Amino acid sequence: MTDRVWQYIEAHKDNLLEDLKASCRLPSISGQAEDLESMALWLKHRLQQAGCKVELWPVDGGPPIVWGTTGGGDRSILSYSHYDVQPPDPLDLWETPPFEPTVRDGKLYARGAADDKGDLLARIQAVEIYQALYGQLPLQVKFFVEGEEEIGSPNLDPVAARHAGELRSDGCLWESGEFDSNERYTIYLGVKGIQYVELRARGAKHDLHSAYAPVAPNPAWRLVQALNALKAADDTITIDGFNEHVRAVTPQEEAFLDSIPYDGDALKRNWGIDAFINNMDDREALRAFLYAPTCTICGIRSGFIDEGQKTVLPSEASVKIDFRLVPDLQPALVLELLRAHLDRRGFDDIEIVPRSACPASRSRPDADIVQTVIETVEHVYGHEPVVFPSHGGSGPMYPLVQGLDMDGVTVGVGYAGTNMHAPNENIRLDDYFQNIVFLVELFRRFARN
Amino acid sequence: MTDRVWQYIEAHKDNLLEDLKASCRLPSISGQAEDLESMALWLKHRLQQAGCKVELWPVDGGPPIVWGTTGGGDRSILSYSHYDVQPPDPLDLWETPPFEPTVRDGKLYARGAADDKGDLLARIQAVEIYQALYGQLPLQVKFFVEGEEEIGSPNLDPVAARHAGELRSDGCLWESGEFDSNERYTIYLGVKGIQYVELRARGAKHDLHSAYAPVAPNPAWRLVQALNALKAADDTITIDGFNEHVRAVTPQEEAFLDSIPYDGDALKRNWGIDAFINNMDDREALRAFLYAPTCTICGIRSGFIDEGQKTVLPSEASVKIDFRLVPDLQPALVLELLRAHLDRRGFDDIEIVPRSACPASRSRPDADIVQTVIETVEHVYGHEPVVFPSHGGSGPMYPLVQGLDMDGVTVGVGYAGTNMHAPNENIRLDDYFQNIVFLVELFRRFARN
Repeated sequence: MTDRVWQYIEAHKDNLLEDLKASCRLPSISGQAEDLESMALWLKHRLQQAGCKVELWPVDGGPPIVWGTTGGGDRSILSYSHYDVQPPDPLDLWETPPFEPTVRDGKLYARGAADDKGDLLARIQAVEIYQALYGQLPLQVKFFVEGEEEIGSPNLDPVAARHAGELRSDGCLWESGEFDSNERYTIYLGVKGIQYVELRARGAKHDLHSAYAPVAPNPAWRLVQALNALKAADDTITIDGFNEHVRAVTPQEEAFLDSIPYDGDALKRNWGIDAFINNMDDREALRAFLYAPTCTICGIRSGFIDEGQKTVLPSEASVKIDFRLVPDLQPALVLELLRAHLDRRGFDDIEIVPRSACPASRSRPDADIVQTVIETVEHVYGHEPVVFPSHGGSGPMYPLVQGLDMDGVTVGVGYAGTNMHAPNENIRLDDYFQNIVFLVELFRRFARN
Repeated sequence: MTDRVWQYIEAHKDNLLEDLKASCRLPSISGQAEDLESMALWLKHRLQQAGCKVELWPVDGGPPIVWGTTGGGDRSILSYSHYDVQPPDPLDLWETPPFEPTVRDGKLYARGAADDKGDLLARIQAVEIYQALYGQLPLQVKFFVEGEEEIGSPNLDPVAARHAGELRSDGCLWESGEFDSNERYTIYLGVKGIQYVELRARGAKHDLHSAYAPVAPNPAWRLVQALNALKAADDTITIDGFNEHVRAVTPQEEAFLDSIPYDGDALKRNWGIDAFINNMDDREALRAFLYAPTCTICGIRSGFIDEGQKTVLPSEASVKIDFRLVPDLQPALVLELLRAHLDRRGFDDIEIVPRSACPASRSRPDADIVQTVIETVEHVYGHEPVVFPSHGGSGPMYPLVQGLDMDGVTVGVGYAGTNMHAPNENIRLDDYFQNIVFLVELFRRFARN
């Protein structure tokens, strides 16, 4: 079956590429309302062209979600993508302009080529090619395309709640799988959650001459003391009750570590460090990267921070912390534990300002969608994929996947040199077309399961 | 005797004031090489006019020190002043231009009117008036006037070493005494020392995505842990050996607390705080302010410090700390104790960058110069001065006073509304002229002792 798809692609390569380029020409930069609106309308039209029933779901103060459904039958796949792209700065580092898609050496260079227009157009074209070759799709494909991913998807929760019935499917294809640097196709079954907070300490109502330090409270010292109550020297998070909610790593999760390539030495070289925290070996480091929650000082600030010296007693101090969360460690729980922990130690004067939050999402490795993707990768790409049970980072997966009792997996067109969020973002055209073949085959297999 | 001086002043008021104004017209703003050079030359001429032998002592990369000596006899006074002034910004808050000296309501408004041209011109004029009324000065007066006070007097150490023999006198008059808000004349017998340091922690060679927090070291956490080793929750400095070098407060020092007015409630109100550190009462607070060393976080910085949120693992963290020092706690000793303390706790990766340093200087309350100033204040001002055994802040007093085995005391023309370092700096003309009377009387008394 894949041969017929390859033949079709060969015969229509120019059109398929031109279609992808057209999507990349639209400068749908994150936060640019007018351009995002144009992109949403282009996409509405494009999905209609592919035979979808399309709706624009309004979003509070943001660009709409484009919702397109097609196909039939009992089984369904939810496809998550986004049509906003990262700002292209710094422009002078691009070899060709970010919104003039250009092919060089078999690669398409453009902002959004991988993240996420490549992923999306491959899926739309796969639907069309399936229909062209075999008639009606044997399963329902539901395109959910948002315009706020690059600013943290602040509106997914209410949308998922409002449209839960339409969204719920037999599996979800998330954005952003890729070939790793060893040319192995890589998929992710989940992401960590996040709870970002700012902690603030206050002293006098204005900065004081530091001669008053013997008598006037110093919020910078206060914050240092409060922070010190959150972590031990061995990097253990010491918030009361926190670690009780961290699931032990299961034998199945442990087994994943065997199959994930991890070159600790290369990481250390790149980062210019001698050792991982606590001198962990590669396996321990990978286990922590995938399964450990974190409490990270992302930024801290108080008083005089410029070059030189100033003898000042600061009036306030603040720290930004991100907690990366594992399943069961819900964001609200973390806020509650943090508040209680600080209060219990007399730090009730430390203000906690909650910022963005999203629970972890981790799909079951034996879920249909996961197993079908793995089998289809083996069939189309000719090798077992590298399966990450979770990404070390976070993403807005929860509201659309685990939050709807679904399982999902990332599938994408990128590779190790894609330059995500950087100048000269690009994809290899062969990867793009192979992803279409993969998707057509996936539709066939998943419909039958 | 003071009557004759008052009569002389009455008769020459316009000239005396015009002379002071002339000095304030020169915009000798700190760091402005050309204007400072002009000011030094003006001053050289002015001191020569007063009968001084004048030298310009060159200073490495800075404006010269103006050295003028006059008078005779066995006893001598060293007068410390500076001819640089603070930048006048923000200019729009001045009611009249900072370098157009203007009299309003019996006050002279000008940048430098108090700090430090008023102090200096009063002393030059006192020398002249003494000579006009009584002939040759009965003691040697040595004017030491530097042009780098407002940038921390970075060149006093080598100058003091090179000219120790000429500088050493029977007492020193420092700059900057004043009437307090209760109209009591206030003098200081010393200042705290300072050792300013920057501590730095380093992680990866560039910022990382915070997803790597489970494995990559975070210098912000590292710095928090190192800082936590320096102070206890009750504000005690916990650096090994540090407190051993803090002299116990003597009964004499304790007695000073009885005579220094201290309105703790007013301070707390001004600062918007409910209590001093450890809920100290006023006497405890004053004792700490005068006699306790400090270890103050003046600024701390790491990672993302702007509004909003960014999930970043910082590559470096730094903190600026000022140690205010008491006698015996020499700056070099503090650096040594700090390094050993951190090393002993495994923080040998924390870099210590020493910034400016100066030992404390505290004169003996029973020194001739101190006692003579106190008696002369009582005689001329009609009340006992408020005597601070030390200022809570620091200043470059050590190289010229305690460092030369001398004693000294501050004497100045300011008052509580002088607006030092602020717009609308001003002095009351009555205070200025009374200070001249005081100085003439002081010369007479100190020569006799």
